[in-house]
Amino acid sequence: MALLVQKFGGTSVGTVDKIEKIADKLFESQKAGNGVVAVVSAMSGETNRLIELARQISHEPNAREYDVLVSTGEQVTIALLSMALHARGVDARSYTGAQVKILTDDSHTKARIMEIDDTAMQSDLEHGRVIVVAGFQGVDKNGNITTLGRGGSDTTAVALAAALKADECQIFTDVDGVYTTDPRVEPNARRLDRITFEEMLEMASLGSKVLQIRAVEFAGKYNVPLRVLSSFEEGPGTLISYEQRTEGKIMEQPVISGIAFNRDEAKLTILGVPDTPGVAYQILGPISDANIEVDMIIQNVGADSTTDFTFTVHRNDYDKALKILQEIATAVNAREVVGDSAIVKVSIVGVGMRSHAGIASKMFKALSDEAINIRMISTSEIKISVVIDEKYLELGVRTLHTAFGLAETASD
Amino acid sequence: MALLVQKFGGTSVGTVDKIEKIADKLFESQKAGNGVVAVVSAMSGETNRLIELARQISHEPNAREYDVLVSTGEQVTIALLSMALHARGVDARSYTGAQVKILTDDSHTKARIMEIDDTAMQSDLEHGRVIVVAGFQGVDKNGNITTLGRGGSDTTAVALAAALKADECQIFTDVDGVYTTDPRVEPNARRLDRITFEEMLEMASLGSKVLQIRAVEFAGKYNVPLRVLSSFEEGPGTLISYEQRTEGKIMEQPVISGIAFNRDEAKLTILGVPDTPGVAYQILGPISDANIEVDMIIQNVGADSTTDFTFTVHRNDYDKALKILQEIATAVNAREVVGDSAIVKVSIVGVGMRSHAGIASKMFKALSDEAINIRMISTSEIKISVVIDEKYLELGVRTLHTAFGLAETASD
Repeated sequence: MALLVQKFGGTSVGTVDKIEKIADKLFESQKAGNGVVAVVSAMSGETNRLIELARQISHEPNAREYDVLVSTGEQVTIALLSMALHARGVDARSYTGAQVKILTDDSHTKARIMEIDDTAMQSDLEHGRVIVVAGFQGVDKNGNITTLGRGGSDTTAVALAAALKADECQIFTDVDGVYTTDPRVEPNARRLDRITFEEMLEMASLGSKVLQIRAVEFAGKYNVPLRVLSSFEEGPGTLISYEQRTEGKIMEQPVISGIAFNRDEAKLTILGVPDTPGVAYQILGPISDANIEVDMIIQNVGADSTTDFTFTVHRNDYDKALKILQEIATAVNAREVVGDSAIVKVSIVGVGMRSHAGIASKMFKALSDEAINIRMISTSEIKISVVIDEKYLELGVRTLHTAFGLAETASD
Repeated sequence: MALLVQKFGGTSVGTVDKIEKIADKLFESQKAGNGVVAVVSAMSGETNRLIELARQISHEPNAREYDVLVSTGEQVTIALLSMALHARGVDARSYTGAQVKILTDDSHTKARIMEIDDTAMQSDLEHGRVIVVAGFQGVDKNGNITTLGRGGSDTTAVALAAALKADECQIFTDVDGVYTTDPRVEPNARRLDRITFEEMLEMASLGSKVLQIRAVEFAGKYNVPLRVLSSFEEGPGTLISYEQRTEGKIMEQPVISGIAFNRDEAKLTILGVPDTPGVAYQILGPISDANIEVDMIIQNVGADSTTDFTFTVHRNDYDKALKILQEIATAVNAREVVGDSAIVKVSIVGVGMRSHAGIASKMFKALSDEAINIRMISTSEIKISVVIDEKYLELGVRTLHTAFGLAETASD
C-alpha cells in the first residue's frame, strides 16, 4: 500500500461540482489500495472575498485577525469535501491546521512550519480513513491561528508528506505537468516525465509558476518525491525528485531539461567606476536599502583601472533604481549610467550540463545563428542565463528549444 | 469596574457597516471603564449560505463536518470585529470556541457546554484587551469542533458570563427589551424594566421569542443577570434576574408581568374512556412514540366511571395525533374522539400571583365580560393559561392586558 498526499488548489475545488469530482478521485485512489491524505485550498474566489471584507474595515488589518479570517476559506473546503466522501460511503475526517496540529512560528500571514503532530493522522490511516487537511494554515505554540502566506497549501502538502513519510506528494493543478518551456511561446514544448528538485527550482524561480519555490525546497530538503498532475485529466504528470541513482551510479540525464525565461527584467549599467575595494557595496548598498531586489550581477574590469558594473532588477523597480544609480555615479565619480528596460532573461536548465562540456558555446552559437545579440551572461552549475532584447524572446526560446532537442520524444 | 459580556446576533453584525457600529459600541463600553467580552454570531445570511453548500452535497451531511463548516461563520465575524477594534486603537483579541476553550460534549450540531477555561481571557482582561468570542461553538475533549445548535450564541454569552463571574450578560437584539405582550397585538404593550428568570422562561416558552429558553435557564442556574437591549437604539432594556431581595425581604413585585400567547396549538379530546389505572399512559404513550410533543394535559372524571382526556399539541402535528388517537379510542373502548385546531393558548405570567389571591377569577371574569369562552384551563405557580378560540386571540390578549393594568407606567 502506498501512502499518498494529494493536494488540490482553489480552482480544483472552486465549486460544489468540482469538490464532488475530487471526492470521486480520492475514493478511487483509496479503492486502488492507497492510504490517502488530501490537502485543499479555499474555493477559488473565497480568499479574495474574505480579504475584501477585511479591506473594507482596515487597509492594514491586524495580522493575527487576518489569519483568523482567511483561514476560514480552507475550513469550508475540508468540511464540504469530507461530507462528499461520507456521501460516497468513505470514512473521512477533516482537520484544520490547528487540529492536525501543524505547529508554526508566530509570523502571522507568512508563518513557517516547525513541527507536525502525526498521531491522529496515523490512527486515522490505520482505521482506513481518508484524511482531509486544510492547506495554508497552522497554529503557533500559544494556540493562535497562523497562515503560511499565499500558495502555502503546497508547503502544507509537502510538510505532511514528510511527517507521514508518504511515498509521494501529488500536487494537482490546472496544468498536466512541468514542460520543457512555456507552450504559449513554443508550441512544441513537451511535458517532462521527471525533473530534479534543483532543475525545478531554477525553472520555478525563472518564471514557470507551476509550484511554489518554497514547497520545492521543502520537498528537496526532506526528500519527498513530488508529482505535478492535472486535476481534470488523467495522466502521469511530472515527477520531481533527486537524480535517479541505480546501484550508486547516476543514471543518464538529459543534458538540458528546459528553457526558462523571465520578461520582467530591466538592466542597469554604471560605466567607468574607479576600481577601488568596496565599490560593489557602495553601488548595491543603496539599491538594497531601497528594497529593490537585484537578480544578475556582472562586473567587468575596464582598460583604465576603472570598472563597469551591470545588474538586473524587476522592471517595476527600473525607474527607482535608475535614479538611485545616477546619484551614486556622482558620488563615486563614475563616468556614466545607462539602462535598458526592454530586455528579457532566457535560461537553459539541466543537471546534465555538469558532465557535458560545450553546452554554453552551443547555446551562444544557436542564438548567434539567428542574429540574436547577447547582452549579459550569467552561469551556475546547472543553468546558463543570457539577457537579450525583449523582441527576440520568442525566437530565442524556440531556437534553444530546438537546438537542445527538447521537442523530440527523449527517453527521459 | 464592571465586567460585561455583550452578545450581538446575526442581524447586528450583518454588514461591515454594522460591525463598525458594534466596534464603536464596544469601544465606548470600554472607555466607560468596563471590562468587555463580546460574543458574536455569524453575519446574517452566512449560516444559511453555508448550510446550502452542504445541502448541495448531501441531504444528511456528516454531523462532525457540518460543525466544521458552519463554525466558520462566527469565525469570520470575530476576525472582522477585532480588526475594526484595532482600527480604533483598541487592543482586541478574537477566540474561536476551540481557542477559548469552550469544552462541550460530542453531540455534534447540538452540543452542551461542560466547562470553560477562562485563563487566557482573565489575562487579556488584566491587559485591558477587549475579548471577542465566537458564539454558538465549542470543542469536544478530542479537539473536534462542535456547535451548540441555532441560537446557541446566547448560551455561549451566558456561559462565559458565568465562567468569568461577569456583572451582567447583555444580549443585544433587534428589540429594545421584553414587553408585557406582543406590541403587534396590543399597541399599549410596555417594555418591562425587570422580569424574573422564572417569568422569562414562561414568557419565552409561550412564544415571546426574544431569548433562547436554554440561555435563560443557564443564566438562572448560575445566577447571571441577563439584560436584553437593542443593538441599534440607546436604552436600558430589560433586566432578567432573580426577584430582588432587600435585607432578606422580597421586594414588592407586580402581580402580573406579562401576557404570553401561542397560536400554534391544537386540541384533542378522547371522551368516555373507561377510568382504569394506566389509561393516561395508554393514550399518551403512542403519541409520544410518534415524536409528538404534548403541551397542556387535562383529565376530567365523568359521571359514569369513565373519564374525558384532553391535551394540546403543535398544530403541525394535529392530523397525525388525531389519527393515532382514533386508533387508541378503538383499542381502549372509548366513546368518541374530538379535536379542534382553531384554538390558541393565552397565559398571564407573574411571580406576584404567588402572594395574591383571586388572580384566576379576575382573569376568567375579564374574558367572560367579553363573551370569550374558555375551552381549557391549566395553572402553575406563576402562570395561568387558558385555551380559547383562535378568533378571540387579539381581543383576549388586549382584555387581559388592560384588566391587569399592564399599560400603566407601573413602578416595576
